[in-house]
Formats: sequence, C-alpha cells, structure tokens
Amino acid sequence: MIHQEILRQRTTRRGTTEITREVAAVVSRANVQMGLVNVFVRHTSCSVIITENADPSVRRDLETLAQRWAPDGDADYVHDTEGDDDMAAHARSVLTASSLNVPIAHGEMLLGTWQGIFLWEHRTHAHTREIVVTVSG
Amino acid sequence: MIHQEILRQRTTRRGTTEITREVAAVVSRANVQMGLVNVFVRHTSCSVIITENADPSVRRDLETLAQRWAPDGDADYVHDTEGDDDMAAHARSVLTASSLNVPIAHGEMLLGTWQGIFLWEHRTHAHTREIVVTVSG
Amino acid sequence: MIHQEILRQRTTRRGTTEITREVAAVVSRANVQMGLVNVFVRHTSCSVIITENADPSVRRDLETLAQRWAPDGDADYVHDTEGDDDMAAHARSVLTASSLNVPIAHGEMLLGTWQGIFLWEHRTHAHTREIVVTVSG
Repeated sequence: MIHQEILRQRTTRRGTTEITREVAAVVSRANVQMGLVNVFVRHTSCSVIITENADPSVRRDLETLAQRWAPDGDADYVHDTEGDDDMAAHARSVLTASSLNVPIAHGEMLLGTWQGIFLWEHRTHAHTREIVVTVSG
Repeated sequence: MIHQEILRQRTTRRGTTEITREVAAVVSRANVQMGLVNVFVRHTSCSVIITENADPSVRRDLETLAQRWAPDGDADYVHDTEGDDDMAAHARSVLTASSLNVPIAHGEMLLGTWQGIFLWEHRTHAHTREIVVTVSG
Repeated sequence: MIHQEILRQRTTRRGTTEITREVAAVVSRANVQMGLVNVFVRHTSCSVIITENADPSVRRDLETLAQRWAPDGDADYVHDTEGDDDMAAHARSVLTASSLNVPIAHGEMLLGTWQGIFLWEHRTHAHTREIVVTVSG
C-alpha cells in the first residue's frame, strides 16, 4: 500500500521549521498500520533532518556548526551565481540529506521521545519548499 | 510484506558497535526474498552508519574527524545541559543519519564485502539504544 | 511490487558522475506508478548524492569542501593501508551516504528541476562501482 502527498512549506529565512505534525497527519490519512514514511525535499538548498525537539538552542548551535562546515562566501568557491549563501546551501544539503525515513507501527511514526522532523532552510531568504511524503506498508 | 522488530543495544561509551549480524537475523526471520531493510535509531545522540568492517582503525579515525566536525564543549555552543558531549552528539547525529537502508536479494542483505552496519554512540557514557528494523518486500 | 537491478559504473578518478538517467531507466522498466526508488552503493569509499545538476562548479566546490572535511593523508589518521586517499574516502562516505531514496509518481521520479543523482567517487583512482537500484510500489 502506497499513499503519497506533496506538502508546501513557506520558510522565512535560513533556519529550521518543525514539520513533525504535518508528516504525522499524512501518516494518519494513509491508514497504514506498519511500514515506513519517506520525507523528501525537491530542492538542493534545503534539507530534512531529525534532531532534538525540546531545546531550540540545539538548532541554533547546528547553524553555528554549519557555518563552519560550509562557510558563506568562502573565497575558494567557484559557484556563487545566487550570492554568498548559494554554494554553502548546496554543501549543507549534501552533508545532511534530501530525504529521511521513519518506521511506522500501530498507524503512527515510531519516533523517539526527543526526535522531531525539521525542514532546514539553507538559503538566507524565504522560499516555498515542496516536500513529498510517501507512506508505504 | 512488512516485518518489524525493535532491537535493544547497550553501548559502553562513545564509539561504534557492529550490528550487521543482528540486522541480518531480522532479515532472515522476515523471510523476504527481494526488498529493503531500514535500520532506524530512536535517539538524537547516536547514529547508524555503513562503513569498512575489516580494520577497526577506520572507526578510530572517524572519531578523530568527528571531534573536528563537532568539537566537545565548543565555546560557541549554547546547548550544554547534559555536558560537553551533549551538543556534539546531536551534531554528529545530524551529520551522519538516524536511519539507513540496505537492499535485499535472495533473502539476504546485498552488502558489499567490506560494508558493515554500525551503531555509533556519540555520548561519552553508556546508553541503551532502541533500533527499529523494518523489512519490506 | 519490487523490481531490482544492479548497475555497474566505471569511475575514472575522484569526482562525480551523473547517474540520473540510468536510475530513471530502471524506474521506467519497473513499471511502478507510485512508490520509491532506493539507490545503494556496495562500497565504503564512494557515495550517492543528490545535488544541483546545472552548474558543474557546484560539484567542484563540493570537492574543495570535502578536502577540508576529511583531508587526504592527515597526520592524525591511523588507517592508511591503501594510501593518502584511503581514510579520507571512508570519511566522505560516512558524511554523505551509501544510499538515497527518491519518491515516484506517475511512473517517474519526483526529482525537483535542479536535482540530479550523482555517484561520488572518493578514491583518487578509477574503480568499477556496483549500484543496486530497488524500486518498490
């Protein structure tokens, strides 16, 4: 059994937006008791990640580290067509991931207590992001 | 066809524990000839990775690099509720992944000769980790 | 429904090779209307990634960054059996991933306009890489 929906999420700037509730709603509508849900972004400058959902400072520190992993406007970049955050955003996307999977049991995602699903916008400006949610079971 | 089991793995400290055999046993019990297995940790401070299974020094060097990617007790971290390894562990989890997939053929995982599946504990102290193994085919 | 094929891809040196067309051909042969495709490499020194497919300088800059994330021949590495690029290749593989998933709708991958699928060879010399493509739906 496959159930698929495309969500559209508006981001306001670089940073994380929790989408656990939105993904859970798709899983609920899929009416699958046991299986997996895949969450996929159709973009190369944002990611989906699972991380700690309680203390927002975790995501602030992830931004601090991401700036080291792929600095904005690095002098060594060749690709800078869309500005200082362009190549950094692609690199952050590759370092994290374009999709993630969560197992489903009893019709609900088997996330741990502290796990949330987040859309991570890597561009500095606002974008509308398409997220494909595919439930199989 | 979906088959799902939850494994509990005790870690002793920061570092990797091979779980290839445990995952293979679930695949065997699933009795799926062709498909995929997903291995998912229900935590935000450990990961599952696939890496070289022959020379343990590979995983030692991964620790060396991870300490650079997300240093313990970095002065720039805001989040340090549970100690110096707290934020570093969340960052290592995001850089690697909370889950991985391996294809199945003829009832067995199609891992390459040198590929092993490892649970990577990112906290410095021991924990009991829940690993959800979902076989579909 | 599961359809699985093993592709063999020759790499010439460290760097990326686009395999979007090859994966799309497997999806087409699978004749699955809605579902997911998993692309998995059977190796610990190459990866599969999704990144920008228009400007090749994006992948050149990813090489620049990867050299920082896991420098060749780093003095701190213990594992160097196969040369300066050996441990760096394993680390790059763990930082990116051994497999990725793309959703399928109407019999085709739901990739965004700028998303391409790339095999990333992390060793400096040529290799033949086995890529398992598994379509489920």
